[in-house]
Amino acid sequence: MPSPTYKKIAIVGVGLIGASIGMAVRKRRLAKEVAGIGRRAASLAAAKKVGAVTVATTNLAKGVDGADLVVVCTPVDGIVEHVQAVASVLQGGTSVREGSTRSRREAYECGVLVTDVGSTKAEIVRQIDMAQRDSTWPANVRFIGSHPIAGNEKRGPKHGSADLFVERTVIITPTGDAKREDVRRVKQFWLALGAKVVTLSPAEHDMAVAAVSHLPHLLASAIAGATPARYVGFSGSGWLDTTRIASGDPALWRQILLANRNNVLDALKTFDEQWNEFRKALEAADATALERLLAQAKQIRDAHAGHQATDA
Amino acid sequence: MPSPTYKKIAIVGVGLIGASIGMAVRKRRLAKEVAGIGRRAASLAAAKKVGAVTVATTNLAKGVDGADLVVVCTPVDGIVEHVQAVASVLQGGTSVREGSTRSRREAYECGVLVTDVGSTKAEIVRQIDMAQRDSTWPANVRFIGSHPIAGNEKRGPKHGSADLFVERTVIITPTGDAKREDVRRVKQFWLALGAKVVTLSPAEHDMAVAAVSHLPHLLASAIAGATPARYVGFSGSGWLDTTRIASGDPALWRQILLANRNNVLDALKTFDEQWNEFRKALEAADATALERLLAQAKQIRDAHAGHQATDA
Repeated sequence: MPSPTYKKIAIVGVGLIGASIGMAVRKRRLAKEVAGIGRRAASLAAAKKVGAVTVATTNLAKGVDGADLVVVCTPVDGIVEHVQAVASVLQGGTSVREGSTRSRREAYECGVLVTDVGSTKAEIVRQIDMAQRDSTWPANVRFIGSHPIAGNEKRGPKHGSADLFVERTVIITPTGDAKREDVRRVKQFWLALGAKVVTLSPAEHDMAVAAVSHLPHLLASAIAGATPARYVGFSGSGWLDTTRIASGDPALWRQILLANRNNVLDALKTFDEQWNEFRKALEAADATALERLLAQAKQIRDAHAGHQATDA
Repeated sequence: MPSPTYKKIAIVGVGLIGASIGMAVRKRRLAKEVAGIGRRAASLAAAKKVGAVTVATTNLAKGVDGADLVVVCTPVDGIVEHVQAVASVLQGGTSVREGSTRSRREAYECGVLVTDVGSTKAEIVRQIDMAQRDSTWPANVRFIGSHPIAGNEKRGPKHGSADLFVERTVIITPTGDAKREDVRRVKQFWLALGAKVVTLSPAEHDMAVAAVSHLPHLLASAIAGATPARYVGFSGSGWLDTTRIASGDPALWRQILLANRNNVLDALKTFDEQWNEFRKALEAADATALERLLAQAKQIRDAHAGHQATDA
């Protein structure tokens, strides 16, 4: 597939992920213009400094004007609101500027595709789908949810990487309302950044990430939190690896965990059952049971050790 | 301090740690001869191939003959037995060979220092201390326990590294029976390999590693074991890091966990209390409590992020 080219990509929120998208787009020359939109001037300046954006602005209307792709990269609690704001400022066809080589009809057909990078999907997609059905929603602005399984515990554009998405999985979550052409376009976008794309329903997505991301985050935090101060100095690489994600931003993760609360609680139940098996084997000094549990865990871990590259 | 030099270092068990010690010793030219003793010819050949040993043998008596330092690097369940076997074959002064430039008296004064690399210490040291007090124990063979907090989930000499111990902590656990000169020698040995050395009592050691190593291992295994097969393909680097140590050898870890069972059960109780706080905050959708718990965990994790280098 040839790489898609965009006239202008607007990135709302230039943190680690937003900046990495900009850097990835620019490295691969996928867009003539990459606009970064943010609230804080310092972040915008940093995003410009690392080459993530060609223009940086705190003005959403200005930032998304003329964009054919908008990627909302804010924390999960702000995604719905920002997508709605994007739709609102694009209302009235501001995406087609005077002097554009495209006709208005072309612009309408392609429309402005909006996606996000939120770690939860069900509630975000439900609320945006509802808003899209409203008569005030501009017909040429259409949303499809994305979640790139990439990034790390660091924050800010200065930790961004043009290859953050290479070989990583991006889950997209189109619903029944999505146009096939839009699904193709969002998929093509992530493929162009080097990612592998998987399609799930928003509900399936949230169950999967509860098990492989949100619950492990909660556990890594509990392990770090339970380590006595007098012993933590004796920790080696095992403790450091096991607790690495506990270094993530508490406010961001509080949002994610609460947004996906029911699924995380379900995953927690599954974990607790397994944990109870380990506890019982140790309490009973049952060598056979303990070794069997360790071997089963090793088998699952080893089978999936190589499918993702390590952090950029 | 000048690097100590040894006539001959014997390494009993040439797995990842044993081979790394040999490679580290040879790289730093700390001994004229490094003998590797093992049961399996294939491991011995691999240890020789990576340059970990100058001679390799399945014969313990031959391997330790003439050694002034013996490092027992077998799995924890075999350490006491191997140290006793070393003492037994060294009985009768086989460490002083015909034609040696040392007098018998010098050899007696320096003696043969024996140490180990076991992940648990209390029971191993207790049993060896008891054996050392027996009249049949050769007076020139003396044991001091060590535990280098290094290594990874891999196995075998081919994954060894001459710099595995650089900047890593080695805990030594001398007891009241230890001679000051022997403590100095074992400390000097690890310092010469680039490690930092900390002295703890065997009991303190076992409590510390229960909290920072053995319990995290059990939890990493439970997290891996509880991950549903249908979702594991969506895991990212977070899951991979959190579960990395679950890839360790089940038989080795079953030994370690059972050898340190009481301390691990105590650490498990502390974790369960913390885990219950996280569970309650999530169940109650208590954003304030959840963010506070995440922030406390992050603080502990971040304060200790840089004190150890990552795996070699």
